[in-house]
Amino acid sequence: GDRMLRGDQRIVLLQHGGLDSLTGKTGLAMLRYRSGPVVAVIDPHHAGENLEAITGIARDVPVVADLASALPFKPEVAVVGLAPSGGVLPEDVRRDAMAALEAGLSLASGLHTLLGQDPQLRAACRPDRWIWDLRQEPEGLRVGQARAAALACRRVLAVGTDMAVGKMSACLELFSAARRRGVACRFVGTGQAGILIAGEGVALDAVRVDYASGAVESAVLAAGSALPPDGLVLVEGQGSLCHPASTATLPLIRGTQPTDLVLVHRADQVCIERLPQIPLPPLRELVERTEALAGLARPQGSGASPRVRAVALNTARLSEADARAAILEAENQLGFTAGPRGQPVLPSRAEVHFGNLGIGWLTSGAGNKSIFDRLMPDRFGIVARKHRSQCLFDDG
Amino acid sequence: GDRMLRGDQRIVLLQHGGLDSLTGKTGLAMLRYRSGPVVAVIDPHHAGENLEAITGIARDVPVVADLASALPFKPEVAVVGLAPSGGVLPEDVRRDAMAALEAGLSLASGLHTLLGQDPQLRAACRPDRWIWDLRQEPEGLRVGQARAAALACRRVLAVGTDMAVGKMSACLELFSAARRRGVACRFVGTGQAGILIAGEGVALDAVRVDYASGAVESAVLAAGSALPPDGLVLVEGQGSLCHPASTATLPLIRGTQPTDLVLVHRADQVCIERLPQIPLPPLRELVERTEALAGLARPQGSGASPRVRAVALNTARLSEADARAAILEAENQLGFTAGPRGQPVLPSRAEVHFGNLGIGWLTSGAGNKSIFDRLMPDRFGIVARKHRSQCLFDDG
Repeated sequence: GDRMLRGDQRIVLLQHGGLDSLTGKTGLAMLRYRSGPVVAVIDPHHAGENLEAITGIARDVPVVADLASALPFKPEVAVVGLAPSGGVLPEDVRRDAMAALEAGLSLASGLHTLLGQDPQLRAACRPDRWIWDLRQEPEGLRVGQARAAALACRRVLAVGTDMAVGKMSACLELFSAARRRGVACRFVGTGQAGILIAGEGVALDAVRVDYASGAVESAVLAAGSALPPDGLVLVEGQGSLCHPASTATLPLIRGTQPTDLVLVHRADQVCIERLPQIPLPPLRELVERTEALAGLARPQGSGASPRVRAVALNTARLSEADARAAILEAENQLGFTAGPRGQPVLPSRAEVHFGNLGIGWLTSGAGNKSIFDRLMPDRFGIVARKHRSQCLFDDG
Repeated sequence: GDRMLRGDQRIVLLQHGGLDSLTGKTGLAMLRYRSGPVVAVIDPHHAGENLEAITGIARDVPVVADLASALPFKPEVAVVGLAPSGGVLPEDVRRDAMAALEAGLSLASGLHTLLGQDPQLRAACRPDRWIWDLRQEPEGLRVGQARAAALACRRVLAVGTDMAVGKMSACLELFSAARRRGVACRFVGTGQAGILIAGEGVALDAVRVDYASGAVESAVLAAGSALPPDGLVLVEGQGSLCHPASTATLPLIRGTQPTDLVLVHRADQVCIERLPQIPLPPLRELVERTEALAGLARPQGSGASPRVRAVALNTARLSEADARAAILEAENQLGFTAGPRGQPVLPSRAEVHFGNLGIGWLTSGAGNKSIFDRLMPDRFGIVARKHRSQCLFDDG
């Protein structure tokens, strides 16, 4: 539940070589979704170029060659926007991280290599500044006690059929919708991009099994305790119950004690992407099994057992015709609808091709509107965003 | 998958003050279940007394005052049998641990405090000896890939309705039965007592969420790859799907890729022991939900989805009449039977009072005998052991 990076702080992204590659997915997600200021992006490969031309992200941020060139834009925090394989800090990024600390900035990083344990970087950090390693297990963890069930606000958790299908994006779309409608809302990140965008959350992968649900619980309590009863906590999911490597879904369910679940699925996917021998179950079956699990370990009197009330269908890889068919199929399979039945509202072909996310939600139970109906009543169940790359869907 | 402590090594237990208290549960479990030699027990409070008189455990092991007095019995490994609150090494135990290393013994410990990082203990350890900290996350971990599903042998995992209900004991009873019947069998410990008894396993609580299922997978592969197709791997469970603090069940299921599950339950328990606000579901419902979860994330062609095929009913706290009624109730609820229907074979009153474990198994599916039928065909579904304390049921 540490909240090191405030939403209003002026950040500069250390994005060396990561404006046009998956290595930079954390920084690209921040450019796409951070509501607070991003005052400059450092990438020597693209210095002086237009950000939208490189990334497709319509945000007016100067691209500069190094930290010195970013200083005129008065950044307060340098954020490493890269996730290089192996998690080691590249030398040119290290040089600019050092320059940032020496210039009086704070430093945030989600790398496996802990920057706060680098003696030179530590020495360069001013006493009233900080180095925040997201992947370090937080101190003072407790074991879970289902305390989040006592929160008055709703708690929505995203679960997925695989890793990297768009859980963070689905949550952030809901977060934007909540803001537009004046619903008090907090987003709890659980991966590095999500945590940096929210400025709060928990890097669950780095927490020991013993404390996993307790760590989620602390983050959800920190986010939810300030919200009114009609407020909303959105918890980014991690991993999948369908993936044999992934066990984060259980501590996320136990720690969040969700009131509602949103299932995120890549529309055409039939098996785990990197383990083709592992088939995905039919969506209806997965909904039932997920709800069966989420119905356990709940305090007496904490309301109805959580249900999957929305499905976010990732149609980024499909043609318009295939996307249309996939949405209809999911509607029929689940009894969910993405608009007046049979007439899903689809984005334009260009948007379908370059990545978009359809969110359909349950309309059964007449008069008993879900939180998702409230957030997006007149968007016909479709949230579409235009992207020039598929990075959006690679944040897990 | 480290196997530091071989089954034939001669151990001395550092059991200071833990022969008659729950602090000593790890050492007491070793005395009860280790098939290899335990040559001496150190407890200055009881030096010279008879072990069975103190503990109720019928094992002929001398109780001595300190390490020097244990040396005539030629120990090879000193094992810390204590789990003091806070996990810190008490001073008198540290003194004997140091004496053991200086005398050329190796040292094993499941304390939170890592003894291998103590400079003085390290310096005292001879080059051809080792200090094994069970709770240290193993090195070289990989993420899970469901590789255990390719093993030819059966894989039985214990799941429980709460922590500390007897999962380790149930597995060790099955292990003994397998040995008696000549079934090739390995036991994979997942908590400190289980790991020390088996000499192999994984201290799951100390592993980061990212690697949890992979760590279980490695341990199961290490145990199972040497077994014949009719062999058996028994995986000790941890925690419970019913407990909001506990998330170990999911990585255990994913890493083990079990062929069969055994559910362990304390017969009279209706809520989580330390969280009375969390009710337990009816056993039949828990069986269904557990099987629903275990049916996901399995490779195509890896056989039938795992079923709960046995229930180990812990009746240690019940009178004979209540135990009899509880067993009948579980039989009726589950369609499991603990002997010829209506005639469960019960141990004597004394045994009921001082701790015993009933194992009833599914007899439906005529002719299609489960592994549990094979292991205990003529014991009428009841395994009973006499204990003088309830320590047996406090190992999780």
